[in-house]
Amino acid sequence: MATKPTKKKRGAKKVATSRKRSSAQQKFVYDFGEKTDGDSSMRALLGGKGANLAEMARIGLPVPPGFTITTEVCTYYYENKLKYPPTLDADIRTSVKRVEKQIGLNFGDPGDPLLFSVRSGARDSMPGMMDTILNLGLNDQTVQGLAKKTGNERFAYDCYRRFIQMYGDVVMGVQPRSEMEHEPFDHAMEQLKKDRSVQDDTQLTADDLKELIQRFKKLIKQRTNQSFPQDVYEQLYGSIGAVFSSWHNPRAKVYRAKYNIPAEWGTAVNVQTMVFGNMGDTSGTGVAFTRDPATGEKVFYGEYLINAQGEDVVAGIRNPQPIAQLAEEMPQSFKELEVVRSKLERHFKDMQDFEFTIQEGKLYMLQTRNGKRTGLAAVRIAVEMVTERLINAKTAVQRIPADSISSLLVPIFDEAARVRTKTLATGLPAGPGAASGHITFTAKGAEDLVKQGKKAVLCRVETTPDDLRGMIASEGILTSRGGVSSHAALVARQMGKVCVCGASAVVIDYERRTLSVGKDVLKEGDFISIDGTTGEIFAGHVDTAPSEVTQVLEGQLKPAKSYTYEMFDKVMRWADRYRKLGVRTNADTPGQAKQAIALGAQGIGLCRTEHMFFEGDRIFYMRQMILATDEGDRRAALKKLLPFQRRDFNGIFKAMEGRPVTIRLLDPPLHEFLPHDSAARNAMAEKLGVSAETINERVNALHEQNPMLGHRGCRLGISYPEITEMQARAIFEAAAQCLTLKNKVPVNVEVMVPLVGYADELSHQMAVIHRVADEVQKAKKVKINYLIGTMIEIPRGALTADEIAEHAEFFSFGTNDLTQTALGMSRDDSGGFLPQYGELEIITQNPFASIDQNGVGQLVEIAVEKGRSARKGIKLGICGEHGGDPESIYFFHKAGLDYVSCSPPRVPVARLAAAQAVLREPGTPQGE
Amino acid sequence: MATKPTKKKRGAKKVATSRKRSSAQQKFVYDFGEKTDGDSSMRALLGGKGANLAEMARIGLPVPPGFTITTEVCTYYYENKLKYPPTLDADIRTSVKRVEKQIGLNFGDPGDPLLFSVRSGARDSMPGMMDTILNLGLNDQTVQGLAKKTGNERFAYDCYRRFIQMYGDVVMGVQPRSEMEHEPFDHAMEQLKKDRSVQDDTQLTADDLKELIQRFKKLIKQRTNQSFPQDVYEQLYGSIGAVFSSWHNPRAKVYRAKYNIPAEWGTAVNVQTMVFGNMGDTSGTGVAFTRDPATGEKVFYGEYLINAQGEDVVAGIRNPQPIAQLAEEMPQSFKELEVVRSKLERHFKDMQDFEFTIQEGKLYMLQTRNGKRTGLAAVRIAVEMVTERLINAKTAVQRIPADSISSLLVPIFDEAARVRTKTLATGLPAGPGAASGHITFTAKGAEDLVKQGKKAVLCRVETTPDDLRGMIASEGILTSRGGVSSHAALVARQMGKVCVCGASAVVIDYERRTLSVGKDVLKEGDFISIDGTTGEIFAGHVDTAPSEVTQVLEGQLKPAKSYTYEMFDKVMRWADRYRKLGVRTNADTPGQAKQAIALGAQGIGLCRTEHMFFEGDRIFYMRQMILATDEGDRRAALKKLLPFQRRDFNGIFKAMEGRPVTIRLLDPPLHEFLPHDSAARNAMAEKLGVSAETINERVNALHEQNPMLGHRGCRLGISYPEITEMQARAIFEAAAQCLTLKNKVPVNVEVMVPLVGYADELSHQMAVIHRVADEVQKAKKVKINYLIGTMIEIPRGALTADEIAEHAEFFSFGTNDLTQTALGMSRDDSGGFLPQYGELEIITQNPFASIDQNGVGQLVEIAVEKGRSARKGIKLGICGEHGGDPESIYFFHKAGLDYVSCSPPRVPVARLAAAQAVLREPGTPQGE
Repeated sequence: MATKPTKKKRGAKKVATSRKRSSAQQKFVYDFGEKTDGDSSMRALLGGKGANLAEMARIGLPVPPGFTITTEVCTYYYENKLKYPPTLDADIRTSVKRVEKQIGLNFGDPGDPLLFSVRSGARDSMPGMMDTILNLGLNDQTVQGLAKKTGNERFAYDCYRRFIQMYGDVVMGVQPRSEMEHEPFDHAMEQLKKDRSVQDDTQLTADDLKELIQRFKKLIKQRTNQSFPQDVYEQLYGSIGAVFSSWHNPRAKVYRAKYNIPAEWGTAVNVQTMVFGNMGDTSGTGVAFTRDPATGEKVFYGEYLINAQGEDVVAGIRNPQPIAQLAEEMPQSFKELEVVRSKLERHFKDMQDFEFTIQEGKLYMLQTRNGKRTGLAAVRIAVEMVTERLINAKTAVQRIPADSISSLLVPIFDEAARVRTKTLATGLPAGPGAASGHITFTAKGAEDLVKQGKKAVLCRVETTPDDLRGMIASEGILTSRGGVSSHAALVARQMGKVCVCGASAVVIDYERRTLSVGKDVLKEGDFISIDGTTGEIFAGHVDTAPSEVTQVLEGQLKPAKSYTYEMFDKVMRWADRYRKLGVRTNADTPGQAKQAIALGAQGIGLCRTEHMFFEGDRIFYMRQMILATDEGDRRAALKKLLPFQRRDFNGIFKAMEGRPVTIRLLDPPLHEFLPHDSAARNAMAEKLGVSAETINERVNALHEQNPMLGHRGCRLGISYPEITEMQARAIFEAAAQCLTLKNKVPVNVEVMVPLVGYADELSHQMAVIHRVADEVQKAKKVKINYLIGTMIEIPRGALTADEIAEHAEFFSFGTNDLTQTALGMSRDDSGGFLPQYGELEIITQNPFASIDQNGVGQLVEIAVEKGRSARKGIKLGICGEHGGDPESIYFFHKAGLDYVSCSPPRVPVARLAAAQAVLREPGTPQGE
Repeated sequence: MATKPTKKKRGAKKVATSRKRSSAQQKFVYDFGEKTDGDSSMRALLGGKGANLAEMARIGLPVPPGFTITTEVCTYYYENKLKYPPTLDADIRTSVKRVEKQIGLNFGDPGDPLLFSVRSGARDSMPGMMDTILNLGLNDQTVQGLAKKTGNERFAYDCYRRFIQMYGDVVMGVQPRSEMEHEPFDHAMEQLKKDRSVQDDTQLTADDLKELIQRFKKLIKQRTNQSFPQDVYEQLYGSIGAVFSSWHNPRAKVYRAKYNIPAEWGTAVNVQTMVFGNMGDTSGTGVAFTRDPATGEKVFYGEYLINAQGEDVVAGIRNPQPIAQLAEEMPQSFKELEVVRSKLERHFKDMQDFEFTIQEGKLYMLQTRNGKRTGLAAVRIAVEMVTERLINAKTAVQRIPADSISSLLVPIFDEAARVRTKTLATGLPAGPGAASGHITFTAKGAEDLVKQGKKAVLCRVETTPDDLRGMIASEGILTSRGGVSSHAALVARQMGKVCVCGASAVVIDYERRTLSVGKDVLKEGDFISIDGTTGEIFAGHVDTAPSEVTQVLEGQLKPAKSYTYEMFDKVMRWADRYRKLGVRTNADTPGQAKQAIALGAQGIGLCRTEHMFFEGDRIFYMRQMILATDEGDRRAALKKLLPFQRRDFNGIFKAMEGRPVTIRLLDPPLHEFLPHDSAARNAMAEKLGVSAETINERVNALHEQNPMLGHRGCRLGISYPEITEMQARAIFEAAAQCLTLKNKVPVNVEVMVPLVGYADELSHQMAVIHRVADEVQKAKKVKINYLIGTMIEIPRGALTADEIAEHAEFFSFGTNDLTQTALGMSRDDSGGFLPQYGELEIITQNPFASIDQNGVGQLVEIAVEKGRSARKGIKLGICGEHGGDPESIYFFHKAGLDYVSCSPPRVPVARLAAAQAVLREPGTPQGE
């Protein structure tokens, strides 16, 4: 959703949320350990970490006891001017007592202190949040108790200095004051090592560490004018406050914006008894996955460090060992971990990512959560868990992020070749997959390379429709300017081309024919490789291969030979079992149509006809038509275009074999077909036999202030009905050809009139189309199965859908333009402010990527209701870019559309998302 | 309304119209004469002409008897494949019998035939419709009877040949086959005169006319392959059919489109006994008005011809005599006419335009209708009829087209001077009034002329914001390109400047410094005069004077000295008595504000701040701000702009004396402030001390594909909150200055955030504004009365108005942009197709002139409802151009807005239209 979901709620029902219960009635602290109050279903209240700690405790896994302060406290804190609920303090003290009792130690006891870790824990794990404070409860007194108790003074003071460092940094805000400055605590440490002339932290003695602690405290005092707190409860409250504060730090905000997490969810705080992985060689710590998160393979995957604390694994200072190694180093612990691994999977029924610590041979579980995984792994894990009967198909369908399925379809770089090659720069990943080829800076260059049997990567500052043939010829497209909605990106997605766009570090010099990044200069013809999944750009060649699924679908590989295909096929079958939305494709050529059918498309939802006018002589006739000053000349040029269009449609009808084909009549403003630079204009003038002035005049006359809102769509067809007539004739004559073949090919065509805002626009165009249909049917003695409908793509069309539906036999929502008009926001120009809107949480999701349900969505709902009120059973679809976006598909499902249409490579995503939409509906029985 | 009103109805309630009564029950023919079925209230059924013929018969005026075939027959005819209702024929024959009986003649009687005229008669009179067929009932037999009966063979055959000519042309379609061909009947007449070697029609003898009749018949046969019908009923049905057909001829359609008359209304047909004004010197015919339709003065006004038929008066072949002359030529008839004149006015209570014929001394009334009149006459007649107690004030308010009131306000050409001067060309009337001055082609030229004490007319191909100061300096603005919504036209309307735009015949050559139309070449400095009310352009000087109303309002003329002012004042007082809508003005300067207050504005509904940045040094600092690459530089430039803005606001607050002032924060995209040609850019680079490249880069970076949908409005304020901050500071500091003056000036300011689509955009900007307000109030120790609200100008804003109203204290509908976005139609680019849409009756009214109630109106209604649901009592206004359009004002009244805001010269129009809106509401007691 484009706006934060709770915003909507806030407007609608302001009172009846559980948060508004009187705080006196609320339970703010949930224990876990011998007594466990929560469970894994309570993520919203306890955060993911807290809920799962409770669940682990509940199923008997060795969890160090502690308690969770709920997300409601975070909300309370922000709604009440950074104050805590009055009852919180008492609750915390009660829980501390409970832990003291279970462990047999006391918090702040100078003799043998109970120590805590404090961790944040939002509903979903979130980078940018305050992570962890360890060893809380140490002070100048208790550190001596710890030293005595463990008999390891150095260990105790190392714990203390680490605590001071973390606390000073995170809670007291002692941080570098500029990008130039070193981390001040690290700097103090380095200074001490220099003073002591040692290389390594471990060479520092307990006394050195005592000195370091003094220096740390002094640093804190200097920087904050406050002393490091000796009171352990003050330490605890400071840490809790720091967790809550970090909920609104910039990185967390950016992350929430990106992943659409409402600020209102808040974070919980987990306070847990410390265990130590750094108490010698019988101690250690590690992170593990129940399956391989990259490939999904069912192997125990992870890493650990002996004699280390958790942060050491993450920090990457020492190289951790692969988990298998533990079987040799600590066989007993490894055996226990294997049990835990299996228990976790059986219990949570999903791949788990967990943290553990071994303290003097005893295993403790510190965290578990559903593991993040690649798209490929998501598919494999879900499929195999069904085979293992851990989950059923319904759950598997819900479990696989719909986008993941495309990772089975993109060409991939050979991993070994990739790591050998230099990463030059990174741009925006705009068309997933891997491409490698010779650098070319022109569309013609790309075509020439392909004619020579070479692979091309078209590198442009930005692309225009003139580059189309070059883009088709290229393996991939690289641009230095333009976002994920730029022309390059749009075309790439449509054609399933690999594309990296907006690589601003890349300087493309057309004159010198070079592409450079800093001092690295590549020349035209040099090899370059781009990864459209990651945005990486490599200098040189990297081998690629098409996905196995593609190879199977294209008949180059037997299905039985490909496990990837088997998985793909299974998931698609499951999806088709549940989904109610039809899935069509946006395809302009027979090739695209065939590809989409192989991927499961049930028809064409959008066949654009304008791309058809760029090839070969067509653009010449098209320009002749545009330059014509009267209807006669226009008709003469159109007559020459007719056979081309007829052939195009014929090819598409044959490829579709009777499936519905929605053909949109000419849509873009005419000036898009004219050349923009004077050289090309002069060439055109010469070819057309007119003066350059004539061309320039016409180009100037066609210039528009806001072409998006200009003379385009059905407005063209109304100004020049002969264009509509020619297109209709091409459509119906192509259909007639198919129907009169010896092996008759059925045809099911839906003629779509674009940009209708007034019912009479449609009826005007329908009269032309029906007339031509009648003429062709009579002349060819055939009955053609056709409908006429319209795109709903401007607000007025949606608002007057009842009037339009008196004529239209179908609607297809053009949500790209509907978004631009409803939001008053040009897709091409939104790059100047949309990123900042994301940071400010004003618009949290790009409305061109995922439909703005609250705004544009209302127009869709209005049009659906009005359309059906005027014509029961009117066919309703959507053919904007949103047709391939899972969140949007869920919305379209709820809105009651009949189908979505998306680019061929998105068809599997849409099938899966459509199934998930059904299963997501409230009240649908869930799988497991 | 932008779409045909019945369209809307058709969707809504399809059945329950009276037209759907079974045709058997319907009365299709209404008599008038001794027996009269209809009256003047039945315009919808009988058409205007038929209803008034009936009414005249009813009140005893001498109407030749006849009957009216209703508009329902027209509708039936088109809904039933051009067939008549089955009962029609019998009804017509019954009515013919009734007329025969009253007159004592028989239709088709060879001895003494009854003759008819057949005339169309729509609800409103409509050019383009078939007008009249006279002498129907003549054939080869009856013509002889007529000759015998009148003893005037030549008269009879002249009547017959005229009938054949009209019938052949209108009913049988014998018309010129190309623009080159002469009218064929005229041609035959000329040929005969040549054969007979005579100059004048009247020189032809009865035998000549018989020969002519043969030639006419032959012509008809040749052209149509049909004979001229001898059967009189065939003649009658042919004529009735021709009337109905003419309802759908192109000219009628264009007229309906222009005046928004639904095609479904249909026309009636009037069949009336012929009377002859051409039976000698005791006969005659004329057209008269009960008052002067040009000035409104209460004098008998009209003209007549002795021995002529009605068409001769209209055709202008002979010069008619002024009506006063009739008192001498036919004193008795003149006396009768004076009685008729007074009876008509007393009965119809409005100025009448009537036709009469005197047949051998006896007066017959052929038609009466409410007379068309100029705006000035409309006002004067209404005002004087109230004085005469013919009507009351309520009726007077309803009677004056709201636009008419402006005709009392525009400067006018001296009529005598005007007719002496050559009309050079005609453009679009874009800013009413008259202006005369020296031609200048540059803004600077205009300023220089004014400095020299000369008057300037700025002549440009088109204008840009750079021309603003020149436009202000000029008397009038003439452009050769751009429609009534072009920059020139908009600014002219806003400033009340005289403007003629889009005069395509005018060629402006900036290099040669000439303005030419064909061979007429004017040089820079030559005199030119333009009439922005008519669009006329005169070569040379024509004297002008400001309107008397303006002179009174500006204190240059005593109110008592001006009858025009007295009328204006009366009408405005009446309007204010009834209206409920407040009327504010769109004003950017103290001068405009004062002008608007004088005209009755109750506040400023839109004070645009962008114009303020063009004057003098300001544009320099503005450009410095735009070119700044960081916040620091931007703030430095803004700091320099602050005092200018503060002074502007101070002036406006003082002028408004505590009335509400809505100030819109910066709205247009920043590139509008940068120069567009390279010379200006270089100059700017030099002045700013940066390289031309820097400027070009920034200009290019700011370039947008669709600036209307780009980085503008609140999006600027969010990207650069320091701009909002500066503007807020200028506003509040100016307010504080007013409040702390010795003679304290109260301030009531409404800060308006533009282009809000998301509630969070507004809350972001509100935080900045409130913070600055707090700071200023604290620093200046004052309490400032202010509100913060937003423009609702993009569909999403309207659709989520409930969310926005949680923050906004007022909404102002920006219907210009709301129209552009809701219709997906750029105002600047719509000229390419909107005119054609009008001709095709797809969009019958320019949606930028009068609000599209069915589309954009829905968004307004949604926003009103949602806005009030979230904030009861939220202040609602409208500040788009539609705020000055009477039809739109009626809509805004119905939608429940609190006020409309329009340009200063439109304020009186809006006051009057707002009163009319109240009186137009269904169920409102009507005046008389």
